[in-house]
Amino acid sequence: MSKVFVNVALSLDGYLAPEGMTMENPGYKDWGAKWGALMAWLLNQRYFRENLKFGPGGETGPVNDLVRSTTERIGANIMGKRMFDQGERSWPDDAPFHTPVYVLTNVRREPWARPGGTTFHFINDGPERALGLAREAAGVRDIRIAGGADVIQQYLNLGVIDELEIALSPVLFGGGRRLFEGLREPLPRFRIDKVLDGPAATHLRYVRQ
Amino acid sequence: MSKVFVNVALSLDGYLAPEGMTMENPGYKDWGAKWGALMAWLLNQRYFRENLKFGPGGETGPVNDLVRSTTERIGANIMGKRMFDQGERSWPDDAPFHTPVYVLTNVRREPWARPGGTTFHFINDGPERALGLAREAAGVRDIRIAGGADVIQQYLNLGVIDELEIALSPVLFGGGRRLFEGLREPLPRFRIDKVLDGPAATHLRYVRQ
Repeated sequence: MSKVFVNVALSLDGYLAPEGMTMENPGYKDWGAKWGALMAWLLNQRYFRENLKFGPGGETGPVNDLVRSTTERIGANIMGKRMFDQGERSWPDDAPFHTPVYVLTNVRREPWARPGGTTFHFINDGPERALGLAREAAGVRDIRIAGGADVIQQYLNLGVIDELEIALSPVLFGGGRRLFEGLREPLPRFRIDKVLDGPAATHLRYVRQ
Repeated sequence: MSKVFVNVALSLDGYLAPEGMTMENPGYKDWGAKWGALMAWLLNQRYFRENLKFGPGGETGPVNDLVRSTTERIGANIMGKRMFDQGERSWPDDAPFHTPVYVLTNVRREPWARPGGTTFHFINDGPERALGLAREAAGVRDIRIAGGADVIQQYLNLGVIDELEIALSPVLFGGGRRLFEGLREPLPRFRIDKVLDGPAATHLRYVRQ
């Protein structure tokens, strides 16, 4: 059966995004520099550059292989409304998912198909319904809970996350949206599966016990 | 000059200690099991067992070497009042530091010498004064900021932490005392120095940029 997994970049102090990170607020507490430090490990990987059409070049080592295998295993994505709303303004027409994407939202809206294989489906019936649809769509491939933090927390509290993949960068944010918050007992239990020690981030992989 | 370093065990969700962890409150939200999961990597290391007189046996691999070298580099410890108060009730007579220990507190008290080389000094003049005394006492060895979280945060905010060593365990606590909280701009900047990939914890070492 498909695995349900989280794959995120995390600051050393546990944030997915720095405080005040919006395009309307460019200089706030230096969020651009913080975000850049969080993502430094990724931006020069060849597979990532190709996928976002950043042009030729880039690294081709084990981190690049990890980015490729993570991307290629995804048969469906699930995300929250805020992540979609921000992306709708900034993704290229050819949105960078190339799978069905289930958006948890209260907004009713028809499916929105983009060039390149991404279709956004707007789900008004909660996270379990979105996961059921994602499982059907993913086939033998896996389901990525893309974010934001609140959506990941909902699925952790449902006990359905099989794998947690975290690229831990050495940057401190000092504030923002925490990955781990509002978790309820009994807490899910994980064990270490694999660690890839990169120069700009530590790639931690945990699987559910 | 002596380095100032932090060396802590951290839950995957960023806590140094689970919520409600006191001896008076043994069953609260299963804190004993959580603490045990946090410390599982350490409890069977031979050097740790010897130091706490747990009896013979224990592992002797790279994690044991790390515990030994960390302990042997320490020339002075600094800790907060709460950590001292809890330890005063639970450490053996031969307290497990074997160095001068500077306790940040409002309580006035004469130095307290224990068998085995640990002397507690009670400092009423703030973290910078404690650090100055610790530097004098440490000689060529290093200064460990032992905890708790609030004391580590004070020294991070003073910008004097040279190295952060974190044993990251896969357990989720869901609540408790966070290591990273209340940090102020400009935030200290670290880079990855070394990662030791153990089976029960990932040993992350960062140095200040």
